[in-house]
Amino acid sequence: MCELLGMNCNVPTDICFSFTGFQKRGGETSIHADGWGIAFFEGKGVRLFLDPKPSAQSPIAELVRNYPIQSLNVIAHIRKATQGLVSLENTHPFVRELWGQYWVFAHNGNLPQFQPELYGAFLPVGNTDSERIFCWLLQSLRIRFNDTPPARDVLFAALHELTDQLAGMGIFNYLLSNGECLFAHCSTELNYLIRHSPFNVAHLKDEDMTVDFSHVTTPNDRVAIIATVPLTDNEPWQAMVPGTLWMFHEGEAVAQLATTPSPIKSLAEDLRTTN
Amino acid sequence: MCELLGMNCNVPTDICFSFTGFQKRGGETSIHADGWGIAFFEGKGVRLFLDPKPSAQSPIAELVRNYPIQSLNVIAHIRKATQGLVSLENTHPFVRELWGQYWVFAHNGNLPQFQPELYGAFLPVGNTDSERIFCWLLQSLRIRFNDTPPARDVLFAALHELTDQLAGMGIFNYLLSNGECLFAHCSTELNYLIRHSPFNVAHLKDEDMTVDFSHVTTPNDRVAIIATVPLTDNEPWQAMVPGTLWMFHEGEAVAQLATTPSPIKSLAEDLRTTN
Repeated sequence: MCELLGMNCNVPTDICFSFTGFQKRGGETSIHADGWGIAFFEGKGVRLFLDPKPSAQSPIAELVRNYPIQSLNVIAHIRKATQGLVSLENTHPFVRELWGQYWVFAHNGNLPQFQPELYGAFLPVGNTDSERIFCWLLQSLRIRFNDTPPARDVLFAALHELTDQLAGMGIFNYLLSNGECLFAHCSTELNYLIRHSPFNVAHLKDEDMTVDFSHVTTPNDRVAIIATVPLTDNEPWQAMVPGTLWMFHEGEAVAQLATTPSPIKSLAEDLRTTN
Repeated sequence: MCELLGMNCNVPTDICFSFTGFQKRGGETSIHADGWGIAFFEGKGVRLFLDPKPSAQSPIAELVRNYPIQSLNVIAHIRKATQGLVSLENTHPFVRELWGQYWVFAHNGNLPQFQPELYGAFLPVGNTDSERIFCWLLQSLRIRFNDTPPARDVLFAALHELTDQLAGMGIFNYLLSNGECLFAHCSTELNYLIRHSPFNVAHLKDEDMTVDFSHVTTPNDRVAIIATVPLTDNEPWQAMVPGTLWMFHEGEAVAQLATTPSPIKSLAEDLRTTN
């Protein structure tokens, strides 16, 4: 399996603190050593850093950790390969363009039976189930809305319907963004946290590091952090209910809908308790 | 205007030496200070580094310069903005997927009159003429060959026909790669160099730095370097004739076809001699 990290804000914010803890899990404090990646929206553009090496030992991850890139939407992923070789083309997040917007997708899970018919507008470059799912999602949105991007709520309803078709097939935790909203599907495990005024001191779980957010924020800032496993040990993380799709916008969870819970959830829980 | 740098090899090679000289031109030894980018193919995957800051002062460029990424095809670009704001979404190279392959494109020039009809399969995210041209090229290939990527020579012939439609409209130097071949169009100015056995010592023009390639190569290695302006001052760079499209494969110039020379070539030459 893999781990996901997402951020959605109302003002451009850097993710250096959260990424510091997340990076450690890629081969140091956890086992996700089969590559990592992070995508930052900046305006309409995307900066994507990918490395098939473990993030804990990657010079590129070191740069990302120390280089404050200000972004409204960020998606990061550390990989423990289940399907597809360890290679650059199989490293998440994946990026495609639809409606003149970049879309970014990262997946934690396994949907081996999902073999959709892809018509050619979006085709996988690598051989993961995750990139196949992403191509199918974008193809389905394109077919449904043709050349006109829908309003945010209509998009969320469509994503809900599409996600629900897959949710019963396996483990399907994902993060998806078009630069405006961040969509998060909790199939088995995903947590989130909203940082807002009054800001406090946060302490990482994976490294003895603190930051006092009251020194680096303004009273109107709102930041949503979404992670497979909470990154700090002194903040009020909320566990998402398995089988829920969320829409985050400007640092708030603005919508939530139920999906079919993963049939493999109980197996996943068993695996966690025995490992 | 901008400057282009490309590399096409028969064995994965790093571009650290050439990039060291090229990076200096982004705001230090030359005026191209409106952002830079570099794309490396690794297998079927692409690593893309973009920064709207000048490359001479960019921490990401510093990483690229010191981190030997082995690649068969590389495209880099330093920008002096002519159309489109200085922003991440307007920073070259651009990447899209067609036929389950990533395609990378960078442009040096100006084709303001070219306003093609784009059907939605590939749309620009930013507002440069360059990204618009790239979308049109991929759209045209997709329409022509439908879902089946053509053989290399057929692809080259199609690119020649498409390039020629635009070549008479303005300055249209470009580099394009699908990870297998590197296509280079010289509209006004582009030079290339083939490094092969016996390898020699090379000396950069923009920094007092040498490398002895005989120490870091094997006798079968072949590397083609393509650059707007030669990067070294002691190697046999060849000036491409304005109005030529080239295909490089495994470190060799394997095909060349004439296109319509840019009508603005003489103007560009006047500008160079007076600046």
